[in-house]
Amino acid sequence: MLIVMKPDAAASDIQRVLEVIETLGFRGHAMPGENRTAIGVTGNSGSIDPAHFENMDGVAEAIRVTKPYKLISKDLRPERSAVKVGTATIGGKDLAIIAGPCAVESHEQLFSAAEVIAASGAKFFRGGAYKPRTSPYAFQGLGVEGLRMLAEVRDTYGLNIVTEAMDEHGVDAIERYGDCIQIGARNMQNFSLLKYAGKTRKPVLLKRGLSATLDELLLAAEYIMAEGNYDVILCERGIRTFGNHARNTLDLSVVPAVHRITHLPIIVDPSHGTGHNYMVTPLARAGVAVGADGLIIEVHPKPDEALCDGSQALTPIQYGELVAQVNELFTLIKQPSVIEATVS
Amino acid sequence: MLIVMKPDAAASDIQRVLEVIETLGFRGHAMPGENRTAIGVTGNSGSIDPAHFENMDGVAEAIRVTKPYKLISKDLRPERSAVKVGTATIGGKDLAIIAGPCAVESHEQLFSAAEVIAASGAKFFRGGAYKPRTSPYAFQGLGVEGLRMLAEVRDTYGLNIVTEAMDEHGVDAIERYGDCIQIGARNMQNFSLLKYAGKTRKPVLLKRGLSATLDELLLAAEYIMAEGNYDVILCERGIRTFGNHARNTLDLSVVPAVHRITHLPIIVDPSHGTGHNYMVTPLARAGVAVGADGLIIEVHPKPDEALCDGSQALTPIQYGELVAQVNELFTLIKQPSVIEATVS
Amino acid sequence: MLIVMKPDAAASDIQRVLEVIETLGFRGHAMPGENRTAIGVTGNSGSIDPAHFENMDGVAEAIRVTKPYKLISKDLRPERSAVKVGTATIGGKDLAIIAGPCAVESHEQLFSAAEVIAASGAKFFRGGAYKPRTSPYAFQGLGVEGLRMLAEVRDTYGLNIVTEAMDEHGVDAIERYGDCIQIGARNMQNFSLLKYAGKTRKPVLLKRGLSATLDELLLAAEYIMAEGNYDVILCERGIRTFGNHARNTLDLSVVPAVHRITHLPIIVDPSHGTGHNYMVTPLARAGVAVGADGLIIEVHPKPDEALCDGSQALTPIQYGELVAQVNELFTLIKQPSVIEATVS
Amino acid sequence: MLIVMKPDAAASDIQRVLEVIETLGFRGHAMPGENRTAIGVTGNSGSIDPAHFENMDGVAEAIRVTKPYKLISKDLRPERSAVKVGTATIGGKDLAIIAGPCAVESHEQLFSAAEVIAASGAKFFRGGAYKPRTSPYAFQGLGVEGLRMLAEVRDTYGLNIVTEAMDEHGVDAIERYGDCIQIGARNMQNFSLLKYAGKTRKPVLLKRGLSATLDELLLAAEYIMAEGNYDVILCERGIRTFGNHARNTLDLSVVPAVHRITHLPIIVDPSHGTGHNYMVTPLARAGVAVGADGLIIEVHPKPDEALCDGSQALTPIQYGELVAQVNELFTLIKQPSVIEATVS
Repeated sequence: MLIVMKPDAAASDIQRVLEVIETLGFRGHAMPGENRTAIGVTGNSGSIDPAHFENMDGVAEAIRVTKPYKLISKDLRPERSAVKVGTATIGGKDLAIIAGPCAVESHEQLFSAAEVIAASGAKFFRGGAYKPRTSPYAFQGLGVEGLRMLAEVRDTYGLNIVTEAMDEHGVDAIERYGDCIQIGARNMQNFSLLKYAGKTRKPVLLKRGLSATLDELLLAAEYIMAEGNYDVILCERGIRTFGNHARNTLDLSVVPAVHRITHLPIIVDPSHGTGHNYMVTPLARAGVAVGADGLIIEVHPKPDEALCDGSQALTPIQYGELVAQVNELFTLIKQPSVIEATVS
Repeated sequence: MLIVMKPDAAASDIQRVLEVIETLGFRGHAMPGENRTAIGVTGNSGSIDPAHFENMDGVAEAIRVTKPYKLISKDLRPERSAVKVGTATIGGKDLAIIAGPCAVESHEQLFSAAEVIAASGAKFFRGGAYKPRTSPYAFQGLGVEGLRMLAEVRDTYGLNIVTEAMDEHGVDAIERYGDCIQIGARNMQNFSLLKYAGKTRKPVLLKRGLSATLDELLLAAEYIMAEGNYDVILCERGIRTFGNHARNTLDLSVVPAVHRITHLPIIVDPSHGTGHNYMVTPLARAGVAVGADGLIIEVHPKPDEALCDGSQALTPIQYGELVAQVNELFTLIKQPSVIEATVS
Repeated sequence: MLIVMKPDAAASDIQRVLEVIETLGFRGHAMPGENRTAIGVTGNSGSIDPAHFENMDGVAEAIRVTKPYKLISKDLRPERSAVKVGTATIGGKDLAIIAGPCAVESHEQLFSAAEVIAASGAKFFRGGAYKPRTSPYAFQGLGVEGLRMLAEVRDTYGLNIVTEAMDEHGVDAIERYGDCIQIGARNMQNFSLLKYAGKTRKPVLLKRGLSATLDELLLAAEYIMAEGNYDVILCERGIRTFGNHARNTLDLSVVPAVHRITHLPIIVDPSHGTGHNYMVTPLARAGVAVGADGLIIEVHPKPDEALCDGSQALTPIQYGELVAQVNELFTLIKQPSVIEATVS
Repeated sequence: MLIVMKPDAAASDIQRVLEVIETLGFRGHAMPGENRTAIGVTGNSGSIDPAHFENMDGVAEAIRVTKPYKLISKDLRPERSAVKVGTATIGGKDLAIIAGPCAVESHEQLFSAAEVIAASGAKFFRGGAYKPRTSPYAFQGLGVEGLRMLAEVRDTYGLNIVTEAMDEHGVDAIERYGDCIQIGARNMQNFSLLKYAGKTRKPVLLKRGLSATLDELLLAAEYIMAEGNYDVILCERGIRTFGNHARNTLDLSVVPAVHRITHLPIIVDPSHGTGHNYMVTPLARAGVAVGADGLIIEVHPKPDEALCDGSQALTPIQYGELVAQVNELFTLIKQPSVIEATVS
């Protein structure tokens, strides 16, 4: 922590701040400047609160410096993690593609989508059995029945199942039927759910909240890992801004920032990230180009009949084109010359 | 819904849109204009998705018009609701003041705060037993032990207890020990928790999420009410913006907007809304002046020793001054001449 | 500035940073901590750029600490400034009310509004002769002809004229015809215009930009003052956020923050700040309650015929009610007991 | 426009709205629904203001439908425009790369950068002679002397000069010395400057404002074009959000949105868009992958000695790697199979 004193702070004000620092078990370093004095605080500063100083006489500002995360940090594990999800991995040498409809609607819809997705070479299938909907009157998902259908998809096509849990019951059910527990943007700071998912042994796909800073996303992952589950995959799915040409603002700069701080893999969701069918493929390309470890894409056999988020779902044909494009791009990006320049 | 066709849309495009509208059980009204045709859709348009039209040939835009809420609406209940919380009400003729520390820390801290708050004439006491903290390594609250202390405060001082639940277990415990279940900003769209709270018979204080639109806040209330619990109090506690002089941006314009659409009461939280001790009293005054039904204020006997959010807590003396000021203001605001000009 | 080294920074990395600090003419203070070293930089740190350090080996972060403003600061002038505008002042003991139509449209419209405003006791009249409009095809204002009409209003009613300049020609014209040069939100960082206005001897009303931080607003004022014009009045008029129930989000927390840092007065614009007629009066009350030095209000004799921003303009009757309410509130706020608790 | 009536609107309210529509010279189409009536308005709705209706009895909402732009629109010119800048074009078959230092500092710095940039195959050189700086005490640029140096760069290396104008004097000087007038983010809605630039015959590079919606960006371009200058290039340079891991949030979804609405070319600025050296190359790749017509990149021979924005400038070596990568990507993106899937 750094405490900046006001220009007119008295020597006794500075003395009092130094005393409080010592009382709290830290060490203070007064640095007199031209106009004002700053006081550096050292020790295990993870647990000191700026509040102790902000309202003291003569204090202008107290600035927190040390970041509070541990397990997610590259300081702990310098090489990038690859997370095993069922029979495949996310974060390794291959581009992970997770595809499927927004919601599980029917056996026919699901198998029709799964056939296309398996044929594309993707190894992960998505589909919601529990749907977080803004309105209580909108379709809320098929629940356990939907999960059973997803398990059938796995058995038939060998695809690994990624599906969302909204509460403890959902986590339990997905532990039984699925391969990866998705925690959605609206639950990114549902700390009880994070802790509960941290106690399972299934990997967790953690989506960034609509207004979550990078630190908050990383600390949400830290919540899961602190319970003993180290298999966390991060996901950028767009943040909320004033912009209105897309449903959200896909923040691709978070990808290199994540790779600089943490060993965890990160994927990009251009479907929720834009909300418009015609933007999905360009932003999927951009996600791969920026260095993401994978993509999560909404595909529906008949988007205009979808019970949820139809306007952003790709048709099977559009999806096939997307896969072809991003695979070519990924090959290019993974050339040694590009990697060297990218990994800083 | 309104569907706007492109200037170069063919007559057959328009015909096809009209057919889809009919297939879906609605009625289409084509309105040819100078440059382009617009098509109005009538019927019970609550359940129609713009996605059905957005990717059709010739369609420029599909705009949703009808709002999807029912129970929160003044259309349903024109007069304002007063919600009973323990022995007092929020939303009635009096200004409701909920005060107390951020977290329950100890018996001494709690009773020291409660004495001041009871003396001020406030009827509601706040204090967190379960704390949603950004970091898993920060103080997480005393749990049921904290709730028991809060129940003691009620028994001793006659204050009604408002405290946060983060999951179903918390809801169950608060039903037993508390008077009002608070759902925090980070859980505003934790739909499982909303439904669960909707099944209890305790009133719910629902805080606006950091990036929640007004519609989303109202639909979160609708989730609770749809389960049969009509006792919901809304709370503005600041939104997340680019601004950095305060911890959040307190959005007071939401107060008249809420009063225009819904019969539910709304209170303002200037403590979390600003995050700085010196801003709390001015913004509390502003909250009352804009027409809020109450305030929720953090008070700590010794803010600089608080285990959480100390920099925004008021000292007992500051709190006493705040109460004196807002009571005077509320009296002024409630004069018939002011009310007439305010309630539109 | 504070430079935070990485945990694995070598002693030679630290040494190199200290050398660069000295080369630049400053003094470095190394503070070894448990996990990492921080280096404080003192001297006249206003002119040092974090960029010098950010990409050096072993550096985790470089954090700017000293604020770069001078003339606006209370360090320079501890008591609050009152700015003379024509025959009256803004920032003194009285609540300043500036009222009038969005745009000057006609002689009849102007005089009809001015009569109401003069009768209300307000001392300032607003009205745009040059209008910044999002579309080039919207009404752009009457120009110098409009300014001449405004001068007539002053001569007839004794109201002081506040009107917007969009460029140097506008500044010249307002110097001749008006009493106060308004610089609009979209020009808050039009630095050429700020410098030009800084060379006149008319006071400047500087509106906060739609996405301006407090620091940026204060530095925009500093631009004007650095040219020798110390008569600057700040104005909060709403910022741009994701919120959609109001046209902008009026950020009232900026008022106490401004009063804490600078001696300059600040007024609030609830008309542009909300964009809706029914919100103007509640937010005007909130602006006064939070401690603003004045208000700027749009009033139109016939809002539904206004050529610009009609949906936010008050009718003469609504305006009269607003003035009555805010005057009562201001009297209450200015009582010594309230002032003492407010000014921290 | 669409006017939505309240559920309890009287028949006479509807009648009155229809009358006002006719009085204004438009045609109203009442569409009775299950719960409420909506009224469509046709005619040249570009010039009708929702304000006329919003405060009428029985009206719930008035929604503007028609977009107010004309010259930028693909309705007017369906094929994409290529803009000639000096001896080369932006928006054609090649990827346009504009590179150079943030500010012109010295002859040596400029020529050192230009040599690298010319060698890379880029055809455009950037460098600011007039610098918009947040603080009046920061380096403000070399002015006309800087422009003369830029002209020398052109004469020596054959690079076309892109440089920023902050006011009319700057526009005049750039018309004489430069090839393309840049209008910066902070001046995007400086309408006087837009009009003035519209009267020159040099192309204009228009940067998106920090909080500008897509519509506002397009209308700013429309301002320039309405004066007769059709050579406008748009530039995404990051928007302001709550995010703090990058200086701005680069909004790449605007690229496909721009290509869908307008024929104008759009380039991406990953330097200002991120503010961090290590993010520039990944985001440059993403910009090309999403379909941008070009990039603008800050390069400095010695970034840690730069007088402005050093932390985001690339070294010559980093810049060389970036160019190699984006050229490969662009070749891939421009394959017919990709283009077909992209252009919707």
